[in-house]
Amino acid sequence: MTDMLLNDVRLPDGAAVDVAISRGRIERVGPNLQAPAHVAREAGAGLLLLPGLVEGHTHLDKTTWESPWYVNQVGPALTDRIDNERAWRAASGHDAASHSRALALAFLREGTTRIRSHVDVDTDAGLRHLEAVHATREALAGLIEIQTVAFPQSGLLGRPGTAALLDLALAQGADVLGGLDPCAIDRDPAQSLDVLFGLADKHGKPLDIHLHEPGDLGAFSLDLILDRVQALDMRGRVVVSHAFCLGGVDARRLDGLLKRLAALEVAVLTTAPPSRPVPPLRACREAGVTLFGGNDGIRDTWTPYGSPDMLARAMMIGLRNDLRRDDEIGWAFDCVSGAAARACGFADYGLTPGARADLVLVAASGVAEAVAQRVPRRLVISGGAVVARDGRLLDSVAA
Amino acid sequence: MTDMLLNDVRLPDGAAVDVAISRGRIERVGPNLQAPAHVAREAGAGLLLLPGLVEGHTHLDKTTWESPWYVNQVGPALTDRIDNERAWRAASGHDAASHSRALALAFLREGTTRIRSHVDVDTDAGLRHLEAVHATREALAGLIEIQTVAFPQSGLLGRPGTAALLDLALAQGADVLGGLDPCAIDRDPAQSLDVLFGLADKHGKPLDIHLHEPGDLGAFSLDLILDRVQALDMRGRVVVSHAFCLGGVDARRLDGLLKRLAALEVAVLTTAPPSRPVPPLRACREAGVTLFGGNDGIRDTWTPYGSPDMLARAMMIGLRNDLRRDDEIGWAFDCVSGAAARACGFADYGLTPGARADLVLVAASGVAEAVAQRVPRRLVISGGAVVARDGRLLDSVAA
Repeated sequence: MTDMLLNDVRLPDGAAVDVAISRGRIERVGPNLQAPAHVAREAGAGLLLLPGLVEGHTHLDKTTWESPWYVNQVGPALTDRIDNERAWRAASGHDAASHSRALALAFLREGTTRIRSHVDVDTDAGLRHLEAVHATREALAGLIEIQTVAFPQSGLLGRPGTAALLDLALAQGADVLGGLDPCAIDRDPAQSLDVLFGLADKHGKPLDIHLHEPGDLGAFSLDLILDRVQALDMRGRVVVSHAFCLGGVDARRLDGLLKRLAALEVAVLTTAPPSRPVPPLRACREAGVTLFGGNDGIRDTWTPYGSPDMLARAMMIGLRNDLRRDDEIGWAFDCVSGAAARACGFADYGLTPGARADLVLVAASGVAEAVAQRVPRRLVISGGAVVARDGRLLDSVAA
Repeated sequence: MTDMLLNDVRLPDGAAVDVAISRGRIERVGPNLQAPAHVAREAGAGLLLLPGLVEGHTHLDKTTWESPWYVNQVGPALTDRIDNERAWRAASGHDAASHSRALALAFLREGTTRIRSHVDVDTDAGLRHLEAVHATREALAGLIEIQTVAFPQSGLLGRPGTAALLDLALAQGADVLGGLDPCAIDRDPAQSLDVLFGLADKHGKPLDIHLHEPGDLGAFSLDLILDRVQALDMRGRVVVSHAFCLGGVDARRLDGLLKRLAALEVAVLTTAPPSRPVPPLRACREAGVTLFGGNDGIRDTWTPYGSPDMLARAMMIGLRNDLRRDDEIGWAFDCVSGAAARACGFADYGLTPGARADLVLVAASGVAEAVAQRVPRRLVISGGAVVARDGRLLDSVAA
């Protein structure tokens, strides 16, 4: 039944094994596996085996990937960036379908096989971006699993008609409902969150709320969010993205928020930005809160930085949290692999039998070296098929 | 007289020019330059021309570059790291000459032609590391300009005999005298700084003092340092490295310190660590303080991170200071080019006639793209000769 035998790889724990793959899934992992002569062999050459990487938070629809350089002259406020982007989109004729596809393929080349992408839904663009990313999702089905989040980037209450568009977006197949700063942007937090949770509840969809609000303001909003998770019993189905406030409150307040997040099984997403307070990884782990990682925008009108490389993001999580020991750097790797899959609900994930055969081979002594030195990907396998070698997608995949 | 004509490159301001090189220096920069037929031509293909990059603060002697992975199990305190390193060096037989050479060549490959390297001097290692890095400096003369800093990593006062070793190091050709946390490590700041400045004064050498002390403690030490710069009139000859305290005091205290730094022409080095407060780049520029950039250790017993790529360090400076506009990212580039050359006193630097012909070509629309996307180096020229193409050193250089 085996379709492919991946020989001679090392697991993160150091064990030398072979991997038998059948019908796109891992069938067996162990030493000296056998297979009939007709089964395809792939030589692992003693390289380190990692599970396919997970991007927990990006914006495929906004990227200028594979476009000429966007010269950034944008003002410093959050609203400057939101307004500038809406105007740029309208003026530039930005094609969210082709750019999201190009960026998703670049992610695949670097070993990422699961992506949660927020997608702007607003009264200017309507559902155009969502339709574009859904087209990419379909075009790349079997290669990359893309979750879409219908995201009100311009606010939920401020522009009438947005809630109706989100309602439609969920009906049309968006996987998750997104939210945004109920105080700072919507300026009516209780009403904003009631509308948002009402929509999620109506459609039975998970939530992912971008909370940029700092310090005690963000902590206030976070408590309002957690009240509603509790009331609707949305345990395990809500993510709070960014949550800068967890890096900006005193130890007692932090402790109380982490306890609530853990009890309500609300996961927290971090991009580990060097210039902002961030949720502390060590404290989250100790409290039993799932913290996972994502890039946010990559080379868009918000930021000129970013690359579709989840090992680079893990490296930033490590640097931001001052993780230097090999075992601690393993926590950063978990943020872009197991923890991200768990938080986003990507099924059949990992290096165990039954999991989807999404595999990455790298030349590294272990996970710490792979992260800290952001080593190149030697081989990427998705759904049991080789899709990239030595940093290049196979022609059949790139086409 | 022209030895090489570099055709068709773009300056950072966008001008399309040729560059005539003679005897290792830039002879002319301008459109449509002519040269006799026998002069070597190098096709610039419209690529962006950058000056050779400058590493303002690293530790060539400590790196494990091109060694097997060092498994980090070190405790979290500064003194844990210092003591662990001294013990590891003694036990491992670490060869500072071969590792420093390997790392310096990796820097060159990525377009760095000037390096300030701190080198440990202590009563265990004596001057062994300094001699090793001086051997590398001589081996690579003409390819990379290496400045050495005789650096008392284990403290100046705590281990008797250190001052005498530093005295000897300066006599044996160390270019700069290094210092370290006069409160936190030496615990007798006035005495520590008096000994340090006395040695610098005796030898007429510049100073580079590593000041990790946070907040008001670091600000106290910084004032003590500035008092002595003033008393000895060492204007323009002192660098304070790290200076985390500048990111950890209130606005009024910061303003006062920046005014003194500017008046005494004391430059500040930052590695822009994501997990520590840092000197704010915008405020330093506004106050007229030269802030420049460096990597600190690369893949050593202190940190598993780092790469010998000054565009990556500029990217981190940009991220740490939340620089997003193209013009602001130009400031981050200045930190690893012009500002670093000025602060370290590297002569004949830049893209103007008379400067040493240290040149880097990259495929980027401008400096902002080169930094934010950390673009690969297409061509590196050092002292008028091609040393690397497409990310590989020429065999003659690597040998």
